[in-house]
Amino acid sequence: MIVVMRTGAKEEQIQRVLDKIHREGLKEHVSRGVERTIIGLVGDVRKIQKGQLEAIEGVDKVMTVLKPFKLASRDFHPEDTKIKINGITVGDKQVMVMAGPCAVESREQIIETAKAIKNAGAHILRGGAFKPRTSPYAFQGMGEEGLKLLAEAKNETGLPIITEAMDIQSIDLVAKYADIVQIGARNMQNFKLLKEVGKIDKPVMLKRGMSATLNEFLMSAEYIMSEGNEKVILCERGIRTFVEYSRNTLDLNIVPVLKRMTHLPVVVDPSHGTGKYEMVKPMAMASVAAGADGLMVEVHPRPEDAVSDGDQSLTFQRFEDMMKGIGPVAEAVGRSL
Amino acid sequence: MIVVMRTGAKEEQIQRVLDKIHREGLKEHVSRGVERTIIGLVGDVRKIQKGQLEAIEGVDKVMTVLKPFKLASRDFHPEDTKIKINGITVGDKQVMVMAGPCAVESREQIIETAKAIKNAGAHILRGGAFKPRTSPYAFQGMGEEGLKLLAEAKNETGLPIITEAMDIQSIDLVAKYADIVQIGARNMQNFKLLKEVGKIDKPVMLKRGMSATLNEFLMSAEYIMSEGNEKVILCERGIRTFVEYSRNTLDLNIVPVLKRMTHLPVVVDPSHGTGKYEMVKPMAMASVAAGADGLMVEVHPRPEDAVSDGDQSLTFQRFEDMMKGIGPVAEAVGRSL
Amino acid sequence: MIVVMRTGAKEEQIQRVLDKIHREGLKEHVSRGVERTIIGLVGDVRKIQKGQLEAIEGVDKVMTVLKPFKLASRDFHPEDTKIKINGITVGDKQVMVMAGPCAVESREQIIETAKAIKNAGAHILRGGAFKPRTSPYAFQGMGEEGLKLLAEAKNETGLPIITEAMDIQSIDLVAKYADIVQIGARNMQNFKLLKEVGKIDKPVMLKRGMSATLNEFLMSAEYIMSEGNEKVILCERGIRTFVEYSRNTLDLNIVPVLKRMTHLPVVVDPSHGTGKYEMVKPMAMASVAAGADGLMVEVHPRPEDAVSDGDQSLTFQRFEDMMKGIGPVAEAVGRSL
Amino acid sequence: MIVVMRTGAKEEQIQRVLDKIHREGLKEHVSRGVERTIIGLVGDVRKIQKGQLEAIEGVDKVMTVLKPFKLASRDFHPEDTKIKINGITVGDKQVMVMAGPCAVESREQIIETAKAIKNAGAHILRGGAFKPRTSPYAFQGMGEEGLKLLAEAKNETGLPIITEAMDIQSIDLVAKYADIVQIGARNMQNFKLLKEVGKIDKPVMLKRGMSATLNEFLMSAEYIMSEGNEKVILCERGIRTFVEYSRNTLDLNIVPVLKRMTHLPVVVDPSHGTGKYEMVKPMAMASVAAGADGLMVEVHPRPEDAVSDGDQSLTFQRFEDMMKGIGPVAEAVGRSL
Repeated sequence: MIVVMRTGAKEEQIQRVLDKIHREGLKEHVSRGVERTIIGLVGDVRKIQKGQLEAIEGVDKVMTVLKPFKLASRDFHPEDTKIKINGITVGDKQVMVMAGPCAVESREQIIETAKAIKNAGAHILRGGAFKPRTSPYAFQGMGEEGLKLLAEAKNETGLPIITEAMDIQSIDLVAKYADIVQIGARNMQNFKLLKEVGKIDKPVMLKRGMSATLNEFLMSAEYIMSEGNEKVILCERGIRTFVEYSRNTLDLNIVPVLKRMTHLPVVVDPSHGTGKYEMVKPMAMASVAAGADGLMVEVHPRPEDAVSDGDQSLTFQRFEDMMKGIGPVAEAVGRSL
Repeated sequence: MIVVMRTGAKEEQIQRVLDKIHREGLKEHVSRGVERTIIGLVGDVRKIQKGQLEAIEGVDKVMTVLKPFKLASRDFHPEDTKIKINGITVGDKQVMVMAGPCAVESREQIIETAKAIKNAGAHILRGGAFKPRTSPYAFQGMGEEGLKLLAEAKNETGLPIITEAMDIQSIDLVAKYADIVQIGARNMQNFKLLKEVGKIDKPVMLKRGMSATLNEFLMSAEYIMSEGNEKVILCERGIRTFVEYSRNTLDLNIVPVLKRMTHLPVVVDPSHGTGKYEMVKPMAMASVAAGADGLMVEVHPRPEDAVSDGDQSLTFQRFEDMMKGIGPVAEAVGRSL
Repeated sequence: MIVVMRTGAKEEQIQRVLDKIHREGLKEHVSRGVERTIIGLVGDVRKIQKGQLEAIEGVDKVMTVLKPFKLASRDFHPEDTKIKINGITVGDKQVMVMAGPCAVESREQIIETAKAIKNAGAHILRGGAFKPRTSPYAFQGMGEEGLKLLAEAKNETGLPIITEAMDIQSIDLVAKYADIVQIGARNMQNFKLLKEVGKIDKPVMLKRGMSATLNEFLMSAEYIMSEGNEKVILCERGIRTFVEYSRNTLDLNIVPVLKRMTHLPVVVDPSHGTGKYEMVKPMAMASVAAGADGLMVEVHPRPEDAVSDGDQSLTFQRFEDMMKGIGPVAEAVGRSL
Repeated sequence: MIVVMRTGAKEEQIQRVLDKIHREGLKEHVSRGVERTIIGLVGDVRKIQKGQLEAIEGVDKVMTVLKPFKLASRDFHPEDTKIKINGITVGDKQVMVMAGPCAVESREQIIETAKAIKNAGAHILRGGAFKPRTSPYAFQGMGEEGLKLLAEAKNETGLPIITEAMDIQSIDLVAKYADIVQIGARNMQNFKLLKEVGKIDKPVMLKRGMSATLNEFLMSAEYIMSEGNEKVILCERGIRTFVEYSRNTLDLNIVPVLKRMTHLPVVVDPSHGTGKYEMVKPMAMASVAAGADGLMVEVHPRPEDAVSDGDQSLTFQRFEDMMKGIGPVAEAVGRSL
């Protein structure tokens, strides 16, 4: 941690910083430049918070040197984490495709969809039984009934299931049916929920919050991992910007950054990331080219009747077309589909 | 709801939109312009989702006309909501000031602070017992012990208490001690939590999420109100932008917009909104001038030792100075402090 | 254009809107719903500005239906625009790669670089002679001397040249040497400059401004085209967001949107878009997969000595490696390199 | 400047950083921590660019300590800059109000407006003769004819004039008529234009670009000042964010930051900052409370007929009402109107 004093900072202000440093049992290296004094902290700097030093008058800014995450960091875990799910391995050479409707709506809908995506080459079935909706008046999901229908679809097709847990109460229920438990973007900093899914023995896919920084994203993964569950999959799904032609701004830039900073697998969701069915295929292809380990895509038999996210859902035919598009890209980057 | 077709949309695409409209029991008004066809929906349009129509090929965009919120809307509730708390009224002529430490740390700290802010003219004591922290390794709050200390401080000073509930499990516990239950920014779309605080008989202060739109913010208030609790206070606390000189970008523009759109009281938190102690006073003054019904400010006896948010906490002296600053501004806008 | 009145708008307010509409020689269709009145404008709506109607009390919002651009729109020009430059065609099947240093620094530097990128397969040489720099104290480019060195490099390698014109004064000079004239992101709304390059007979590459919407970007292209120069190439180079791990946020989402909305070729600049040399290759690959017609990449013999943008410049070896990476991706999407 | 190496950086990478430092004639202080090595630069660090060091493999990040601006900095110029214009002083105790139409449209319009704003207490007349418009098909201003009408209005009312110069060609013409030359937000980084207005002997009001950081804003002021013109007024006019209820997000947070960092006067434009006439008054009041030295407000006799910005223009009556609102706020903060 490095403390930069303001130009013209008083000696007593500098002393107050040193006092604080000593009070916490640390040492310092002081560098008095022509314009500014800089104080480097020596010792176990995690004992002091940045904000405590910034609270002292005369301090201009405090710069941290160490990353706040450990378990999620590639520095301490250089090999890729590979997560096995029913014979599929996430984070390995194969690009994994999760597909299905936003919400489970009926037996016909989910089974019809499961069969269609399987035929097109998808590996995992997605579908929401508990739905976080902006409006209290909107459809909130079928609940356990939806989970049972997912189980039926799994039975029929052999596809593993990913579905969302929205609260602590339903984690056990969801985990009973799901092969991967999803934590949604709005819950990325629901820390109690993160801790609880850190205690289960199922892989967790953590979606990035709409305005999450890299640190915040990885610290949320750290929450899960610090409770013992190291099977965490990270999912980019679009951030909020000024841009008006997509619902969110899918931020593929984070893919190579995550691949370097962490050993966890990285998945991209171009459906939520763009909010427009026409953009899903090109952005899915771009995701694979950028190095994503997998994709999550919304598919619905009749998007115009979908209870949610119709505008970003692919029809079966569009999904098939997307799969044909990403196959050669996967090969071009040395992977398989 | 108005559907705008793309230039060159085919007749069969237009027909598919009309079929969907009829299938939902609605009628339409079609306007065929030189370049584009526009279809207005007639009837109870809430039966159709925007996304369903946008899922139809040839549709360029769908524009909604009605606001999605009802209970929170001033359209159906023109008079200001005034919330009485221990003899204080939020949403009335008086500008209400809530102050206190980010986190309750010890008996001395909270009681010392309560006395100091009371002397300076504050009306409500804030302090966190359960703390949502970005890092799993950071101090997570004193829990019930913290709530008990808040109760002691209330006992000593007579100041009502506001404190945060982070999850459904602790709502009853928090509500037992708190006069106002706070829902934090990270939980603004924790819909299960919103529903639960909608069932209690205590005022709820809902903080705006870091990237929440107006609609999302008011729909979250609607979640609480739709469960029966109409005592909701809205709190602006900064949004996430590209700006680098403040931790968040306090968005005072929302204050006059909220005052027009909703009948609920509006509070501003310049501490989280800026993240810098030096900016709190001027932005507090600006908040009052913009029409805020209240302020929430972080105060700590020794910010450089605060377990959290030291950089944005006011010392007692700075808080007193801020109170002296906002008094005349409140009067200038026809209010009192 | 569609005017949505507020709930409870008065009859006289509605009348005032109608008066304005009639005054401009237009007609209307009025739809009085239970909650709100909606007024559709009929006739040549471009006579009225959105803001004029929004200035009338009782108006909630005004929605436009027609796109503001014509010449740049694919609606009126369905076939792709293909731009021939010294035997190369931009906007055709081949993915075109422009590469070179941020700034021309010396004869050795630019010629050494030109040869290296040519060997690696690049098609066009980039290099700045006039540099827009944030600081008045930074190197501002070699000026005409730099242009002459670019010409020498072209002579040696046969590579066409792209270089930036920063102001009206130097357009003729720049156009004398350049095969493509670049308009930088900071000048995307320098409307006088746009008009002037609209009068020259050279292709223009227009870089997207850091916070430009789609409409603004295309309207700037329209400025150039409306003066007679239809050879416009659009270039995405990153937008400004809250994200901290890249200098800008390269927004690949705009690629498929532009390809649908306009007939102009679309190029991506992953160097400025990310600001980090390590991210250039994966994002270049993603750009091609997303459908970009070309790439612009910064290359420098010794980035640690570059007078600008060292952090985002590729060494010769890294550039060669990038070219090897994008070749197979181009083929995977049915293109060549 | 401080270089932070990555965890596990190789000795040769550290050496390469040291070589670069030595090559530029600087010295270093190396601190080898358990996890990371940190290198502090000693000497005239402005010789090295951040990007050059970040270009070296193994470097994680480079942190700068010194501010890049000098002339604009309060560090080297502690007293407030006060700018006298026709007997009015900007940057002093009085809050200065500039008002008038977006564009000069006719003799009647500008003279009628000048009289009305003068009666209401405004100090300076604004009005555009050259208008930067997003669309090439929109009204581009009356040109010199508009400047002459402004001069007439000045003659009639005695109000000094502020008007925009859009390009180098028209600077002399504009400066002939204007008391303050305005540089618009879209031209904030039109560096050639900045340099040219740096050579004239008239005060310059520099509007913040829509996505400008603090550094970029002040560096643009520095461009003007470095050419000899120290009479620069800074103007906040809204930034681009995800927010949808205002055209831009007026960022009042920058006001106290600018007042601390620079000695230049700070003006706020709540008209462009919000884009909605209803928001202008409350945000004008908030601006004064936050410490602004002045306001710039759009006023039009009949906003519904304004050729531009009707939606954000105040009628005469609304302007009068705004002036009545800000008077007491100015007094509350120890200033006059």
